[in-house]
Amino acid sequence: MTESRGTGAPGGESAAFEDDDYRHAVVDLLGAIAYGELTAFDRLSADARLAPSLEDKIAISQMACVELGHLVQLRDRITELGSDPSVAMAPFRQALDLFHAHTAPADWWEGLVKAYVGDGLAADFYREIAAYLDTRTRDLIVSSLEDAGHSDFVVDRVKAAIADDPRLAGRLALWGRRLMGEALTQAQRVAAERDALSALLAGGVDRPALDLAAIGRLFTRITERHAERMAALGLDA
Amino acid sequence: MTESRGTGAPGGESAAFEDDDYRHAVVDLLGAIAYGELTAFDRLSADARLAPSLEDKIAISQMACVELGHLVQLRDRITELGSDPSVAMAPFRQALDLFHAHTAPADWWEGLVKAYVGDGLAADFYREIAAYLDTRTRDLIVSSLEDAGHSDFVVDRVKAAIADDPRLAGRLALWGRRLMGEALTQAQRVAAERDALSALLAGGVDRPALDLAAIGRLFTRITERHAERMAALGLDA
Repeated sequence: MTESRGTGAPGGESAAFEDDDYRHAVVDLLGAIAYGELTAFDRLSADARLAPSLEDKIAISQMACVELGHLVQLRDRITELGSDPSVAMAPFRQALDLFHAHTAPADWWEGLVKAYVGDGLAADFYREIAAYLDTRTRDLIVSSLEDAGHSDFVVDRVKAAIADDPRLAGRLALWGRRLMGEALTQAQRVAAERDALSALLAGGVDRPALDLAAIGRLFTRITERHAERMAALGLDA
Repeated sequence: MTESRGTGAPGGESAAFEDDDYRHAVVDLLGAIAYGELTAFDRLSADARLAPSLEDKIAISQMACVELGHLVQLRDRITELGSDPSVAMAPFRQALDLFHAHTAPADWWEGLVKAYVGDGLAADFYREIAAYLDTRTRDLIVSSLEDAGHSDFVVDRVKAAIADDPRLAGRLALWGRRLMGEALTQAQRVAAERDALSALLAGGVDRPALDLAAIGRLFTRITERHAERMAALGLDA
């Protein structure tokens, strides 16, 4: 679909990394995703304490550990690109912490919906950006954003809970819209503040730019996928 | 060193499981260890939030995930033995929750020492009991109690912190004694309340009993190993 930057020499880095701005932008992006994984581990391991059963608790804890594994991969790659992972993650701390502070789940069900819908939104967004990057970065991002293998678990649990208590559907549908709204607010904040990331989207000498129409289509796709996830849960988007 | 119960038929259970009391006692023991792993995951993932650096945070979170992996193995084995893992874990909830409530770390350093010294104590205790059990149960317990691979990390960090601030050594030495005291208190409570586990230690028709002298030697060994761990941290036991 999208032009991507070459595969690079075997065993080496893509030629794209000869451009220092490009390297900065990639480190920025990996830092953002890494900080997201870090907060995901925190959040899921805290949510595990709300689990109504041992099986649920183990399932959500296992999701937390999958996110931790991704964080380790991203940290190693940032180091390999010559940057300090903590420094790379720092600029995204405020936006992600605010997102989580504004969307603290009130109960187990809100936590489950947030894990599924919130992580899905972030994954869609980063995957869209990854399409414009060198192969190696793209593969790392796509594998870091892989479903922690537990979407079926969330869908199954939420649908069963709504069947038990249909009033829950209204509350969780509102919750899904709030998650989407907060995610867009914080994404805009990051885009406005991070020149390197914005420059990536704006293209460069040898890079395809993301024009306004393309950005519009990107958000349409992200919104559509959000609606599909909500529908999978049996909720109105 | 210790007599153990046969290896059992290939692919089958040890003959020891024909004795229903034995099966109960093993399920009890696995339930106790499993609940310990569950609380370890909770505690370590909460401690991770206190970590002073990204590297420390990742290291302690990885320890949490190793404990979760052990919990999954123990849960599967309890299910295989025909019992419900939640039910098997329930009797140990109060003692372990009290242990953790009475030993909530005040800071990162107390959390590190607790992870190393507390888990070490539990591991020594369960390994001693495991020596009296069938091979398969023993192997499962020993692998569940394996060092999460991060002892070196704790020793390294605590020694460096004490070198930076020698007053810390006094506080952490007291903390280590308090951990030992609380662990013994709660272990006694469990032994007094759980007939199946006590019967295991008291032996049976075809089982070697643990007489008072043997129990005394067991506690001597556990105390000695505790002192070794404290010494490894550079602390008085």
